[in-house]
Amino acid sequence: MPTLAFWYEFASNYSYLSARRIEALADEAGVTVVWRPFLLGPVFAAQGMTTSPFNLYPIKGRYMVRDMERQCAGFGKPFKVPEPFPQNGLLAARIALVGAGKAWGPAFTRAVYEAEFVDGKTISDKALLADILTGLGEDAEAVLAAAEDPDNKAALKAQTEKGLEMGLFGAPSFVTDDGEMFWGDDRLEQALYWAKTGSLEGFQG
Amino acid sequence: MPTLAFWYEFASNYSYLSARRIEALADEAGVTVVWRPFLLGPVFAAQGMTTSPFNLYPIKGRYMVRDMERQCAGFGKPFKVPEPFPQNGLLAARIALVGAGKAWGPAFTRAVYEAEFVDGKTISDKALLADILTGLGEDAEAVLAAAEDPDNKAALKAQTEKGLEMGLFGAPSFVTDDGEMFWGDDRLEQALYWAKTGSLEGFQG
Repeated sequence: MPTLAFWYEFASNYSYLSARRIEALADEAGVTVVWRPFLLGPVFAAQGMTTSPFNLYPIKGRYMVRDMERQCAGFGKPFKVPEPFPQNGLLAARIALVGAGKAWGPAFTRAVYEAEFVDGKTISDKALLADILTGLGEDAEAVLAAAEDPDNKAALKAQTEKGLEMGLFGAPSFVTDDGEMFWGDDRLEQALYWAKTGSLEGFQG
Repeated sequence: MPTLAFWYEFASNYSYLSARRIEALADEAGVTVVWRPFLLGPVFAAQGMTTSPFNLYPIKGRYMVRDMERQCAGFGKPFKVPEPFPQNGLLAARIALVGAGKAWGPAFTRAVYEAEFVDGKTISDKALLADILTGLGEDAEAVLAAAEDPDNKAALKAQTEKGLEMGLFGAPSFVTDDGEMFWGDDRLEQALYWAKTGSLEGFQG
């Protein structure tokens, strides 16, 4: 079965939209999703940016909020901008990396995004993340220990560096088996189509 | 009939995609397109940018080229990056403003985009623009005189300033009768749906 790597960052609101949609669409397309949490901080820094483009360009940031409100209305969940924005997603990403190959990984990712962008919660809060894990029937203490293991920390760093080498510059990004990269929630359908067929020929938008 | 204002800049490759698609989609939706050429220069300057984000962030610029190649393959036209990028679209925009309410306006706009992004031509070239006008059966000399009339120059400046006041930060942008703004070729379908219905309720992506 072809795969599609889903590169996401917990601070990224457009990654949240993709995390909601990707599994059903991938199932339909016959594509396996590979969940790849990474950190945008070093990626933005490589472009000379010190924070989210939505903060660097406030006029774009204001539009983003309105756009997200419109998109989220479509599935009946209000959109909240967490304070501060962007949130620190480091610990959540370390946990998601532990869960990346496991059944609870996607559910954990979606739950963190909902806590952040529906409830406006602080996702660097270890107690919040532990509660989410417990709610999914996992041993929160054990998962947190695995997340904070030096090897796992190094693995997340290496994954982020690999993303940089591949030319990632934002999130969400999608990468096919043949190395084709798509950026943005709006390109998810194209990315899945490419993953399945190796081109966009015949793609109906 | 509801209208949708299509704010576009001739230097903008994603505006080119929208210029190709908007009329057929608007006809289908029962929406009248109002063509609003404007200048991105002052809009970028207001955000502290001295050139296109695709130049300021080269990694994003490289992705944009690949993304455009993929999108353009869908309608069978190769994508060429004109040299220099971005092009100076001032004179083309002045002409397009003259043509905005006229039958030849949309065809002129599309022809300029094709010269620029299919053939890689220099669209600040007055002779090229005159040829396009002549090819559309217009009196090129008369149109150019109208385009360079001080009142028309002032009107383009005023239109750009109005865009800035409305919160425009990039192109293409789409604005509905009730002031809802959508940014990016990927939001064209949503913008038309909103123009027609006043919300995105029931929108199927």
